[in-house]
Amino acid sequence: MPITITVFARSPDEGRGLARDMPVRWALEEAGLAYDVRPIGFDAMKQPAHRRRQPFGQIPVFEDGEVTLFESGAIVLHVALHHAGLLPDAAAARARATGWLFAAVATVEPPIVEHEQAGYLEADRDWLGERLALAGERIAVRLGDLADALGEADWLDGAFSAGDLMMIAVLRRLGGSPILAAFPSLVAYVARGEARPAFRRAFAAQRAQFLAAGGR
Amino acid sequence: MPITITVFARSPDEGRGLARDMPVRWALEEAGLAYDVRPIGFDAMKQPAHRRRQPFGQIPVFEDGEVTLFESGAIVLHVALHHAGLLPDAAAARARATGWLFAAVATVEPPIVEHEQAGYLEADRDWLGERLALAGERIAVRLGDLADALGEADWLDGAFSAGDLMMIAVLRRLGGSPILAAFPSLVAYVARGEARPAFRRAFAAQRAQFLAAGGR
Repeated sequence: MPITITVFARSPDEGRGLARDMPVRWALEEAGLAYDVRPIGFDAMKQPAHRRRQPFGQIPVFEDGEVTLFESGAIVLHVALHHAGLLPDAAAARARATGWLFAAVATVEPPIVEHEQAGYLEADRDWLGERLALAGERIAVRLGDLADALGEADWLDGAFSAGDLMMIAVLRRLGGSPILAAFPSLVAYVARGEARPAFRRAFAAQRAQFLAAGGR
Repeated sequence: MPITITVFARSPDEGRGLARDMPVRWALEEAGLAYDVRPIGFDAMKQPAHRRRQPFGQIPVFEDGEVTLFESGAIVLHVALHHAGLLPDAAAARARATGWLFAAVATVEPPIVEHEQAGYLEADRDWLGERLALAGERIAVRLGDLADALGEADWLDGAFSAGDLMMIAVLRRLGGSPILAAFPSLVAYVARGEARPAFRRAFAAQRAQFLAAGGR
């Protein structure tokens, strides 16, 4: 039985690789692991059969033999812990890479998602402009700290790791936003991630999935 | 050298155990590990000396020999991976417990923090009431899914794990809020966590820290 990941049948990001299957596909490509996908529609995601594997009715779900796992951060870490290529060997450095992986999903991503969600959930409120400005300022504080930590290095802590992978996947949600563009070193950091062959294979696979579902 | 964790010199939660050192203290108590604390004030948290250990200028930082680590989720996982008592032995169950730990910090906590922050960062805006209602609805969706996943069990997946520890620490931020009170099974779940001897020791230690700093 190959590894299987559950993904959007037709991703709402229109094949831009911003959905949470992208870091999982990327990690599997970095580790050199083949995988199958199980596409799922929006209605089926909310049904009990899917919720037994993903309690919050989201994607992705990772299945490998007896392991069934949700949360993209947990899946990337699971792949990184069990296969070479995504974590350093030394214990202290491994711990720090895991710290960056958590920082990506628990410290940097939340204000980015808040800003995104305000854009559609509060689209009809007259406060929207002020709200987006406030939320954008909170993102900028995080990005300033992150840019300071990165400095002039290529990656956050020595060689490329699962921490960089997840951080870059999170930063990509900001796309061409001026919030990200204000930090040229982070724009270059994202570009370095996107230039990796494993990223390109993962991106092409999710894009092909979108197009096969009738997107364009 | 004992384990050292960096904590608020005087916690803004006034000793209620809602700061992010609490799950770390709790995990160390569950694992039976002694630790020292390094209290830090708000000004020092924003200085380079602290940012070299915690790039986002927050607490806690965990130090154990050559390991220096930030992000409470990463610290709790590090303790759980290296000491008995916080993760099951079987590989598939270990992965699932890690999944719940990530779900706590990446899926359940963000809307709770958003709601909290709106309460003070947007306190002077005339939209505050509507904003809190919208944010509260998003929390309730997550809590409904979580309550369904918990069902009538004591813990999320078999025996108590680091996943429960972090989830309960996150839910405690809702305190006596009606948002949490609407889910009696989650209120009982939090109470089960708070009744654990290790939780009580951790809570007493952070409370003593607050009182020693002149709080009351």
